Amino acid sequence: MIRPLEHSSRPAVALLGGGRIGKIHAANAAAHPGLALKYVVDPFGDAAAALAARYGATATTLESALADPAIAGVIVASPTDQHLTHCLQAAAAGKAIFCEKPVDLSVERARSAAGALAKARLFLGFNRRFDPSFRALRHKLQAGAIGSLETLHIISHDPAPPPVSYIKVSGGLFKDMTIHDFDVARWLLAEPVVEVYAMGACLVDPAIGAADDIDTAKVLLRTASGRMALISNSRRSGYGYDQRIEAFGSGGSVRVDNFTTTAVAVWDEEGASRAPFQNFFLERYAEAYRLEMDHFAGVLRGEEPAVGFADGVHALELAEAAWRSHATGRPVALSGGA
Amino acid sequence: MIRPLEHSSRPAVALLGGGRIGKIHAANAAAHPGLALKYVVDPFGDAAAALAARYGATATTLESALADPAIAGVIVASPTDQHLTHCLQAAAAGKAIFCEKPVDLSVERARSAAGALAKARLFLGFNRRFDPSFRALRHKLQAGAIGSLETLHIISHDPAPPPVSYIKVSGGLFKDMTIHDFDVARWLLAEPVVEVYAMGACLVDPAIGAADDIDTAKVLLRTASGRMALISNSRRSGYGYDQRIEAFGSGGSVRVDNFTTTAVAVWDEEGASRAPFQNFFLERYAEAYRLEMDHFAGVLRGEEPAVGFADGVHALELAEAAWRSHATGRPVALSGGA
Amino acid sequence: MIRPLEHSSRPAVALLGGGRIGKIHAANAAAHPGLALKYVVDPFGDAAAALAARYGATATTLESALADPAIAGVIVASPTDQHLTHCLQAAAAGKAIFCEKPVDLSVERARSAAGALAKARLFLGFNRRFDPSFRALRHKLQAGAIGSLETLHIISHDPAPPPVSYIKVSGGLFKDMTIHDFDVARWLLAEPVVEVYAMGACLVDPAIGAADDIDTAKVLLRTASGRMALISNSRRSGYGYDQRIEAFGSGGSVRVDNFTTTAVAVWDEEGASRAPFQNFFLERYAEAYRLEMDHFAGVLRGEEPAVGFADGVHALELAEAAWRSHATGRPVALSGGA
Amino acid sequence: MIRPLEHSSRPAVALLGGGRIGKIHAANAAAHPGLALKYVVDPFGDAAAALAARYGATATTLESALADPAIAGVIVASPTDQHLTHCLQAAAAGKAIFCEKPVDLSVERARSAAGALAKARLFLGFNRRFDPSFRALRHKLQAGAIGSLETLHIISHDPAPPPVSYIKVSGGLFKDMTIHDFDVARWLLAEPVVEVYAMGACLVDPAIGAADDIDTAKVLLRTASGRMALISNSRRSGYGYDQRIEAFGSGGSVRVDNFTTTAVAVWDEEGASRAPFQNFFLERYAEAYRLEMDHFAGVLRGEEPAVGFADGVHALELAEAAWRSHATGRPVALSGGA
Repeated sequence: MIRPLEHSSRPAVALLGGGRIGKIHAANAAAHPGLALKYVVDPFGDAAAALAARYGATATTLESALADPAIAGVIVASPTDQHLTHCLQAAAAGKAIFCEKPVDLSVERARSAAGALAKARLFLGFNRRFDPSFRALRHKLQAGAIGSLETLHIISHDPAPPPVSYIKVSGGLFKDMTIHDFDVARWLLAEPVVEVYAMGACLVDPAIGAADDIDTAKVLLRTASGRMALISNSRRSGYGYDQRIEAFGSGGSVRVDNFTTTAVAVWDEEGASRAPFQNFFLERYAEAYRLEMDHFAGVLRGEEPAVGFADGVHALELAEAAWRSHATGRPVALSGGA
Repeated sequence: MIRPLEHSSRPAVALLGGGRIGKIHAANAAAHPGLALKYVVDPFGDAAAALAARYGATATTLESALADPAIAGVIVASPTDQHLTHCLQAAAAGKAIFCEKPVDLSVERARSAAGALAKARLFLGFNRRFDPSFRALRHKLQAGAIGSLETLHIISHDPAPPPVSYIKVSGGLFKDMTIHDFDVARWLLAEPVVEVYAMGACLVDPAIGAADDIDTAKVLLRTASGRMALISNSRRSGYGYDQRIEAFGSGGSVRVDNFTTTAVAVWDEEGASRAPFQNFFLERYAEAYRLEMDHFAGVLRGEEPAVGFADGVHALELAEAAWRSHATGRPVALSGGA
Repeated sequence: MIRPLEHSSRPAVALLGGGRIGKIHAANAAAHPGLALKYVVDPFGDAAAALAARYGATATTLESALADPAIAGVIVASPTDQHLTHCLQAAAAGKAIFCEKPVDLSVERARSAAGALAKARLFLGFNRRFDPSFRALRHKLQAGAIGSLETLHIISHDPAPPPVSYIKVSGGLFKDMTIHDFDVARWLLAEPVVEVYAMGACLVDPAIGAADDIDTAKVLLRTASGRMALISNSRRSGYGYDQRIEAFGSGGSVRVDNFTTTAVAVWDEEGASRAPFQNFFLERYAEAYRLEMDHFAGVLRGEEPAVGFADGVHALELAEAAWRSHATGRPVALSGGA
Repeated sequence: MIRPLEHSSRPAVALLGGGRIGKIHAANAAAHPGLALKYVVDPFGDAAAALAARYGATATTLESALADPAIAGVIVASPTDQHLTHCLQAAAAGKAIFCEKPVDLSVERARSAAGALAKARLFLGFNRRFDPSFRALRHKLQAGAIGSLETLHIISHDPAPPPVSYIKVSGGLFKDMTIHDFDVARWLLAEPVVEVYAMGACLVDPAIGAADDIDTAKVLLRTASGRMALISNSRRSGYGYDQRIEAFGSGGSVRVDNFTTTAVAVWDEEGASRAPFQNFFLERYAEAYRLEMDHFAGVLRGEEPAVGFADGVHALELAEAAWRSHATGRPVALSGGA
């Protein structure tokens, strides 16, 4: 356990964005023994003020926060279309950055910022990489528990679709939802992906189709050595948040199953009834968010970010390739790999 | 796999009793590549004839069957109150015996027959000892998988109570139902039981209480070295046949859980629903009955019976001690152990 | 339960082929209360004689068997390249047919026989359709337990690859192994498949690649209404026989998981260890084979075959489309659906 | 979610005891949006100072803390032999009390304090009652999910024994460890217990026996209506913290199983390996401790304590009865019930 620092000697951080995910990061930064949450920045002043008050921080403007030399790090939890701008501003001010996914909705724009962000200490918050169960799975793979990895199944189904208003600005299923799974696939396959085939459909809500998006997809990825990954997505499971991974190797298989809300089961004449899965990402990845913040504290102490800007760009490349595949009905080759 | 013998050169067996359990044994004897089912004996001639016809055997009388020198073994599946008589007759005729449990309803009577049966090749059919899962559990214990065995939980709940008419001639819960669990406990504890405490109640059906019996019990056993076993019984589970064992040792625990009828599960908003447990002993111990018959074929080839008459007497002693404990409200010591 | 017929009044059947699967069918036919196994036909006379002797049948030639008017049905368990010929001969002789999958290795040849077999009472033995768990899953789908079916995952991994000599005459992964899964997909999707995309690789054994085959595949199917199915295949799991299905619908999910060999688990400091999965198809589908034979007995009594020749042709069409997709790297459209 | 109060307007609490359990309560009180942790009291000044510093509280003496009119509640997490004294002092000062179990090691002493504490708002911290899974089980019972409750199995095995120095001052297995299970039994049986039979042994560590204590026990309880409960205890499981409950009723069974540390499983030739159970109570009951503190915040707002001093006395009565039963080898009747 990290010995808590005196509050005054902890590195100070500023949080940009007081929405759903900002609130999570605020709670975790405030509770972390090695961080001091100093500022909350949000154009909606009330949101910023309420969040700041709860954790003994101050609501302020982005400019003031970046101008404060005491601020060592910036947590970018603003809307997606501002991620890139905020990262560039924070980098220009010499701050370490903890940026929410995705880095942007455009591969092209993201690539154009890569140069300016190359030297920044930027940690990209792909939460799955910090989930203890997924980490344990990866550790098993690396320890050779199933020999050489051959194929991968990632099941990632949301409990219920977001409002169509959200869908319209989300960048579409692949950039908004599958983006996590693309990163998980890259993280576990441990090889560049060279081919993407995506079969998508609108089966859940016609309004999603009317917004030129899909709500159901099966995506196949292939690496140069022949490893294959399936990603299964649905915007609506009907049975809670389904987040599973199965890895098949030359010597066996390793899996992560879902967690249930309680450990209760009832047996009667009909059979057994068990508690449902955890409802959504706030519960399922609660510990992952805590561990992300802990990692950011490490970055502020000089550790190398475990996930960087380039990972975000690669995930975005896969998302764009998947959409192209879906649109053309053909597999898409990634010349340099992603 | 045993190479099947020409039918004419297989040892011939006679089945006494064409009831529920007799039908099981008939099917297994007929299908066994090393046995020939020659006779079926049942005072209800129709039952014997139908069963015999199905498997190409002949319905006959006990006297004729025992008088046939071709008969190497006798399967005693007659009513409990005839087990002892039939065993003694078969032994007198020099036949090997496969006797259904219990050997009798009276320890005293059983003991009085022990001399006459001492030299018989008698195999007592305690089916749990042949269940592949329970065997695997015992094998784990013997292999030291959990270090030294300390305590044991045996859960044995029937799906639904038998008719009270059956209860009245059953010998009571401890001799009819717990008898199996007493034998399992002895088999796994691997030490004589020196103390029995039984807490019983009539919670399921007042008619069972009116018949001077109980339908629910928790029994504690203790061995000389201090090992303890719990047996939990109920005549009615409400959720199928519950047959579980947990063994706790110095280095861990080993358990046998129930089997479900299928491997299907449904997940929806309420949680997961799984298929029910196997309904009753005919399904749960189907493989055990086959392996019992296979063992009897081995006994006919000269193998030592794995469970003998003395095991049946000891189980009965425990059943009588449990009833005494229940009746007096006191633990009962077994001077010589059982 | 079916009341057993007098042996002499049961419909008689002839078995063609005394190999691995022939032995299964022989045992099940012999044990069935409504069938009499009269002949075993195999060019290897010894195999036929041994099998016939075991079940009180007679080894004979195909011609004699078909010429016997007492023979009501023929079980075609000969090598794959003789299935079609044997079916045509049996049909010409007016016998009902129980044919092992696949009907042939060529869609073209199979189609050319369709006319001659159109009026035959031919039951095609796709074992998965008779597995109690898969049937229960389908029953749940039909009962609306998960609303409208949207997507399907079929995982079908063998424990270990067959010898390359077998691979060379097998017709390839898709016709030999995936053929089952194509049929399962058709059975559950309940709509014609209009598109197939297959990603294959040789990851298990280079000798399989040298034989122009693959050993690992992910196949995506799509129906006209947009339902999607994934089939995952591997010739070697490293952990036993992996046979699972998950169906995702508008109101939830229904799954069939694997069975373990026993219900034993050990808990120690490292966690829990459970018994392995059933090793291979002879164990996993033992009950399905029994139920197939029971269905064939029904066909002999006048019931409609549940799976017919056309189902075999469609599965073969999907197999050929999958190979074309794998070979060209493009999805393949099935104009008329399969 | 409770709207967080301005820090200055939250009810202030004082924590007595900065040991293992005190640290848990300090963290939960500090993180609770409706509480302000103002003081930490511990005779070891350093411990108090460090804990106070971490959460922005002040280390002080009991007298000062109780004299501060701003203090609304006192958390008694001092050593067991001071619980009663501290409760009486806090009650005399008019503070609400959150007292750790057990109330004392002597039924007699506890009873003698009952009068003085009768009017105190005292909440007794039996953590199991706040575990979400156990609560869900009780909710199922109350909702009639399994009909009428008949019997109960409580399995409560620690991962490893404490040092013998701890054992010597612990009050013995029944007062130190089983005390939780006695309370759980009372909570779920929902009827007074009228009879206790305890079979105990020293199987884990002879030094525990040398200290006149036992480390392994099976306890049977009976209520007036005939409901029965088994409690199984071991000081050392060898496989983590085993905390399970099974309730058997007239219409089925409801169970709480253990949680694993992660949701990872590996399948290979040997079978499946799963992650171990959560190691000990700090992990297993982390959420229960948070919910206890939340309940105490409710008590400070005027809610009735869900568990009171009398519950602590009854659990202690059962512990003393169990020891008497173990010592005499006889069941012990509780005249008034407990």
